[in-house]
Amino acid sequence: VTAASSGKNEPKTAKARATRERLLRVAAQLFSVKGYFHTTVEDVMGEAALTKGGFYAHFESKEDLAYAAVEHATELWAQKVITHVMAFSDPREQLRELLEGYRRYAVDRTFEGGCFFVNLAVEMDDQHDEIRRLVEARFEQFRALVVTIVEGGKAAGVFRQDAPTRAIAALVVAALTGSMMLSKSAQKFDQFDDANDLLARLLATFET
Amino acid sequence: VTAASSGKNEPKTAKARATRERLLRVAAQLFSVKGYFHTTVEDVMGEAALTKGGFYAHFESKEDLAYAAVEHATELWAQKVITHVMAFSDPREQLRELLEGYRRYAVDRTFEGGCFFVNLAVEMDDQHDEIRRLVEARFEQFRALVVTIVEGGKAAGVFRQDAPTRAIAALVVAALTGSMMLSKSAQKFDQFDDANDLLARLLATFET
Repeated sequence: VTAASSGKNEPKTAKARATRERLLRVAAQLFSVKGYFHTTVEDVMGEAALTKGGFYAHFESKEDLAYAAVEHATELWAQKVITHVMAFSDPREQLRELLEGYRRYAVDRTFEGGCFFVNLAVEMDDQHDEIRRLVEARFEQFRALVVTIVEGGKAAGVFRQDAPTRAIAALVVAALTGSMMLSKSAQKFDQFDDANDLLARLLATFET
Repeated sequence: VTAASSGKNEPKTAKARATRERLLRVAAQLFSVKGYFHTTVEDVMGEAALTKGGFYAHFESKEDLAYAAVEHATELWAQKVITHVMAFSDPREQLRELLEGYRRYAVDRTFEGGCFFVNLAVEMDDQHDEIRRLVEARFEQFRALVVTIVEGGKAAGVFRQDAPTRAIAALVVAALTGSMMLSKSAQKFDQFDDANDLLARLLATFET
C-alpha cells in the first residue's frame, strides 16, 4: 500500500521492516503532537532510540517519511473506525456506530496529538501541497464511507430516498473532525458525547 | 481588552499604537498560515517591513505577541460573525445566520490560513498550555453565543422548551470548525454549503 510513495525503500529483511514500522509509529505520533515542520529527523530517531544516520536506510527524506506515515495512520484509523462500523449490518446502526467508532478513536487517543489527519490538514493546507492532497484524500475516503452507508440504507429501504446523502456525509465528517479538534483543545471529551448524541438523533429523521 | 495580557506594553503614542496594530495583523495571519512555532519574530518584522530590534518596543516576547494576537483575532472574528448575527432579531434567524456568518468568515478568508483559532488549537493542545487555554476560552465563548440564541428563542416561544441547548451548541461549533478545517484542506468551500444547509434544516426541527 506504500509502494507508490516510497517504493525505493521497501525493506528487504524482517529487521528492516520492523525498524521501518517503528519509525512510522513514532513519526505518526510526533507529527500529530508537534506537527510536521516542528518535528526533525533527529526527534524521530531519538524517540525510536536510533542514531540519526540510520534514518536514510529507511526513508529518502522527512517528506518521504510523511507520505508513508499517512498510509500508516490510515491503517490505524481504519482499524478503529471501519472495523467498528463493519461489526454492524443494519445501515441505521452503521451510521450511528460510525459516530461512536470515531469517538472511541478520539477517546482512546489513537494518536497522542488528537487526529493525525486533522492536525496535518491544518498544518499543510497552505504549506505543502502534496501532503495536503494526501490528507484531503483521506477525508474524501471518510465521506465516501458515509455515502456508502446511507446509499446502502436507501437500497435496503431503511433510509428515505430523499435523504441528502452528500450533505449527510459532509455534516458527519465536519461534526466529527470538529469535535475531535475541540475535545483536544478543551482536553476533555464530553462535548463529543453531546454533539454525537444530537447528531445521531437528528440523522434518525432520515430513517423510514 | 488586551491590558491583562500585555499591560506593560500599552503603546504611548499614535505611531506606536499603529505599529503595534500592524504587528498584530501580520502575526495573526502568519500564525494562522505557518503556525506559532514555525513563525519567528524575524518573520513578523520582515512581513511588517520593520527591523527585528524594534519588536521589543512593542512586545516582551513572541509569547506576549501570541496573547495579544488572540485578542486581535477575536475582534476580527466578532466583527464577522457576531455583527452578522446581531443584524437579525428573531432567534430562529439568528441561529441560521450564525451558520451563514461563520461560512462567510471562512469564504472571505478573514485569516489566510483558515481559522486562526482552529489552527492554533491544533498546534497548541499538547504544546503550550497557556495559549491553549486562551484559544479554548474563545470556543467556549462561541458555544455560549449559541446557548444565548437558543435560550432566547425558548423565552420568545419560537424554540421548543425541550430543545437540548448545550448539545446544539456543541454540534453547531463542531460542525462549523470542522467544515472550516475540511474546506481549507480541500481548498474549496462547497462542503461548507452542504453541511450548513443540512444542519440549518435539522435544527429547524426544534422550532415550535
